[in-house]
Amino acid sequence: MIAPVVILVEPQLAENIGMVARAMANFGLSELRLVAPKNGWPKKGVREAASGATHVLDDATVFATVPEAIADLNYLLATTARERGQMKRAYAPDEAMADVAARAGQRVGVMFGRERIGLTNDEVSLADAIVTFPVSPDFPSLNLAQAVLLVGYEWRKASGQARLPFTGEMQSPPATREAMASLVASLEGSLEAGGFYPPEKRDVIARNMRDMLHRMAMTEQDVRTFRGALRAMTRIKAKE
Amino acid sequence: MIAPVVILVEPQLAENIGMVARAMANFGLSELRLVAPKNGWPKKGVREAASGATHVLDDATVFATVPEAIADLNYLLATTARERGQMKRAYAPDEAMADVAARAGQRVGVMFGRERIGLTNDEVSLADAIVTFPVSPDFPSLNLAQAVLLVGYEWRKASGQARLPFTGEMQSPPATREAMASLVASLEGSLEAGGFYPPEKRDVIARNMRDMLHRMAMTEQDVRTFRGALRAMTRIKAKE
Repeated sequence: MIAPVVILVEPQLAENIGMVARAMANFGLSELRLVAPKNGWPKKGVREAASGATHVLDDATVFATVPEAIADLNYLLATTARERGQMKRAYAPDEAMADVAARAGQRVGVMFGRERIGLTNDEVSLADAIVTFPVSPDFPSLNLAQAVLLVGYEWRKASGQARLPFTGEMQSPPATREAMASLVASLEGSLEAGGFYPPEKRDVIARNMRDMLHRMAMTEQDVRTFRGALRAMTRIKAKE
Repeated sequence: MIAPVVILVEPQLAENIGMVARAMANFGLSELRLVAPKNGWPKKGVREAASGATHVLDDATVFATVPEAIADLNYLLATTARERGQMKRAYAPDEAMADVAARAGQRVGVMFGRERIGLTNDEVSLADAIVTFPVSPDFPSLNLAQAVLLVGYEWRKASGQARLPFTGEMQSPPATREAMASLVASLEGSLEAGGFYPPEKRDVIARNMRDMLHRMAMTEQDVRTFRGALRAMTRIKAKE
């Protein structure tokens, strides 16, 4: 599946552009287009801000105008934080990327505006649809690189590539019920010997203890560790 | 619903902590805890990096150790990019926040590690579960503030607060079918007069034109604009 192109319109700060490159690389986006970057390109400090995502910066292309930057695209999304009085569909990032993922073989671009003032209404009018973010109305100002990060993150999810680097699967299988039963038996034996159970409440308390132990979903190794701990504690008692 | 607490363990860079505060504020998280920030607290430049989210910084609390920082929490998530040989459940951010949103009335914390080396295995062992991010294996290194941003974003979605700042709803109602029909009629009239239709293909072409016009989902205003444009073009012809 072709990942969307990221288009930054008149970006100003080297740090933001570098952070954009890093955010893109984090989620597998690689094509960056810059429209008339303020104070020229390349910018001093941009590579440092990309902390290693320099391949995105090295391959970045610079355009003089938005129409040139979007000329080859089949579908264009414009990101904006505010209403533009235009009647385009406004998508949340996840909805927008689900739509993009469904556009097999189409070249898609996502356009981000200037740090302070965003995109102009004329620039937004060139887009097929709008992407806006579900930010808190009390603090809606999203950093440029963070807007790109959310789009990349949702693209990765929508394109079915969002695999976790590792799973929480058990490295050792859960203990057999027999191992659990014998652990429970020796625990209850020690507690009995230690005078833990008030006779009238014995059954209820024993059941609650068994419930606690089973909630731990112990592995064979856990059971061995627990039995060792139990032996150590009864040893103390023996020494007294 | 109580938003999760963000816990940064030994954060170093003022800029990252400021960006964390901003990312939190973007999605309505407000409680920030710092464990032994490197080179002390408050840090020079942190407020600038927060670009306005200073309320999060002003309310941030500093702790000497992780156990003190998490003492009052009912449920703790640890973020990590790599396997720790621990048998905890590993969640993606959306799964983790869905679980958190279901913990009504519980105080939940999400713990983030040091910029370079993350959390220690001992720190991770204190958590109930792990959160890890579906990053690209080719470039997995996620900036601290961006990890916080993704957690805040998914929290906002999971807690049902992810409303868009505006919708793409039409400001003017769709045109009536009658208005569309009369627009189509006058367009076809002008095209007829202009000798646009090869007789044998007239019906097919006319149908395709009507299809194009209806795909635009015109409003009353759009129809007026389009009719004016049509009149202007036929005027040129008249002048010739």
